[in-house]
Formats: sequence, structure tokens, C-alpha cells
Amino acid sequence: MSELPAALQQLIGELGKLPGVGRRSAERMAFALLASEAEEVAPLAGALVRLHEEVGLCDVCGYYTDRGICPVCADPRRDDSLLCVVDMPVDVIAFERTGGFSGRYHVLGGVLSPLKGIGPSDLNIAALQRRLREGGVAEIILANSPSVEGDATAHYLAQVLAREGVAFTRIGRGVPMGGSLDLTDSGTLRLALEGRRAID
Amino acid sequence: MSELPAALQQLIGELGKLPGVGRRSAERMAFALLASEAEEVAPLAGALVRLHEEVGLCDVCGYYTDRGICPVCADPRRDDSLLCVVDMPVDVIAFERTGGFSGRYHVLGGVLSPLKGIGPSDLNIAALQRRLREGGVAEIILANSPSVEGDATAHYLAQVLAREGVAFTRIGRGVPMGGSLDLTDSGTLRLALEGRRAID
Repeated sequence: MSELPAALQQLIGELGKLPGVGRRSAERMAFALLASEAEEVAPLAGALVRLHEEVGLCDVCGYYTDRGICPVCADPRRDDSLLCVVDMPVDVIAFERTGGFSGRYHVLGGVLSPLKGIGPSDLNIAALQRRLREGGVAEIILANSPSVEGDATAHYLAQVLAREGVAFTRIGRGVPMGGSLDLTDSGTLRLALEGRRAID
Repeated sequence: MSELPAALQQLIGELGKLPGVGRRSAERMAFALLASEAEEVAPLAGALVRLHEEVGLCDVCGYYTDRGICPVCADPRRDDSLLCVVDMPVDVIAFERTGGFSGRYHVLGGVLSPLKGIGPSDLNIAALQRRLREGGVAEIILANSPSVEGDATAHYLAQVLAREGVAFTRIGRGVPMGGSLDLTDSGTLRLALEGRRAID
């Protein structure tokens, strides 16, 4: 086919790098943006430019913020005794969306991965130790991702932080809500059996 | 849940306006962009800014170009006698993708729509008449979209351009390739019956 204008080709290429966006979806988006007015495209371009300029990581917990300290850390009503450790900032958003957690967070910024060369010093662990030494934390919920690397990271943290004198828990594992048993992988089913609880 | 940074919220909102992108997809894209480096986001922002600066419409046919005359109009090997009239620039891309059309195009820039206040003067029709008067066109393929408005636009063109002394054809209508008959709407099946052809 005849060549598309270079700027259009580049836009399609860049949109295609976004998660869940294939070549055809990227084309559809690019054509829609081209068919709309330049003034309608400017806010998206502007938001992209401002994204990394304005949004950084919270000085205390490592979650996204544009104010130095994130809204969760700044909230005095949060329970200081309960600290939920997660891999990535988006995990905080997932927990906040449940509306069921009143404690505080600590974001590691990744998982231990010898294969990718990510060791303890690459994660936000020193700041976590400082927070624990300041006192007040009674329980650490290790909410690392349910994967081999997430499990390894959780076990590592439970070991190196053991002397800080806090209780460690790992988030529950099993069949997800609305999940169909015959579509659930055997690894998850095994975890669901191991994690069975008495009916109260 | 605790509020997301303003720049992140705006980006999610803008991404959510793209076709086929829901709230959760927009969030996923925005989080991925935030998790990547600023240098990786800059090309997308730049492509958006350049899109309307660089890409315009071909002076001859109305298709996208960044060079005044589009690659199809500039190609001397194209068949001048065959002119395919389409509603939108993306329709040219769809036909070019087939690799089966060697003629030229003319893009109207829309369809007649009394409800939306779009009349003949809002479409790229005057330029089409000029092209016909320059001579050389033997057949006009009316490839307007298969809709009530597209049909009305095709009929209007066939009427007002009748005196230019060219043959008019309308693109074939019927069951799409790979289409399942029991999933095809009755309007399309009726068109498929009307458009039946002898087996040669």
C-alpha cells in the first residue's frame, strides 16, 4: 500500500507500544486523533509531557504523588500499626480500590530477580527498615505479587526484618471471586486447598 | 480511594477518549507510561504534537499527506480512468491495503447528513467536478459507506455528476468473507440476494 505520512506512522508505532494495544487498535486511535481537531489532541500530548514532570514517588512509602508526601501517608486517620508491603505503586491503587484497607503502604519498586540482576539494594528496603525502627508498626502484610519472584521477595523480607519485632502475614491465596474451578490452574487450586479455613 | 495525582488523572481521562479504550484500559496504559522512563514517553507526546502540524489533506484528492500531493496522486503508474470516491481518508487506507485497486481516489470528507446539517457544500464535491472536467475519467466507483447516509450520498453524486459523461458503479454489497450466514443481519442478506451473480 502507499506510504502513510511519517508523523502518522510514528504515532501508530508509539501507540502500539502501550499495553493491550495491537497494530490495528493503534491505527484506529491514530486515525481518530487525526480526524479530530488539533485542539482536541493537545490535552493528551500535554498530559504525557506533564506526567513525568509532575508525578514522582512519595518520600515515605514510594507510592505515586505530586506533593512530596502521598495522600495515604499524609492521612492522619490511617492505622500506623498495619503496614502493607507491595511490589509496585499500581498495587497500592488496587488495594485502595477495595476500600477495605485502613493501614499504610510501603512500595518496594519491584521484586527480587537474580535473572534480571535485581537484588535487595535495588528495592526500597532500606527506607522500610527505617520506618520500622521509628516504631508503631505491629504487623507487616507481605502483599508481594503471587509469583515465584514475589514469594521469594516476601520470604527475604520476613527474614531480614525478623529482628524488628513485628508480625508478618502473607496475603491469602486461592480461587478468585467469581472464578470457575474448572478454569482455575492447578497451582492456584493447590494454594486454595492449602489455604482452606474453618467455616465460622 | 485516595486521589491519584492530577497529571495522572488527566492522562487517564484523555486516553479514555480514544476509540476502543475504556476506563480500565486507559488506567493500564497510563500506569505503564508512568512506570516507564520519561524519555520513553517523549516520542509519543512528540508524535501527537507533530500529527496535525505535519499531516494535512492532499490538494488533489483529499487523502492524508505531508507533502501537498499524496503518494497515490503523485504515482504516474496509477490508472487515471478509474476514480474511487470514498467518504473518509481512512477508507483510502482500507482500499490500499487490499492491494487490488490501481485507480485513483477522491475523498469527500464525510457523507450527506441533513440531521447533522451536512450538505453538498460541506463535502469535497466541487474539486471532484473539476477533476472530471479535466477529462480522462471513464468510471467512478462510488465506494461510500454501506449505510443510509452513504447510499444517499452515492445517489446524489450519481445525479449531479451524470452530465460529466462517466459511468457510475457502486461497490458490491453482500455477505463478508468468512461471514457466517446465521450471524448476518437480514438487511445484508437481502443485499446479498439482490447482488447475486452468475457462476462463471
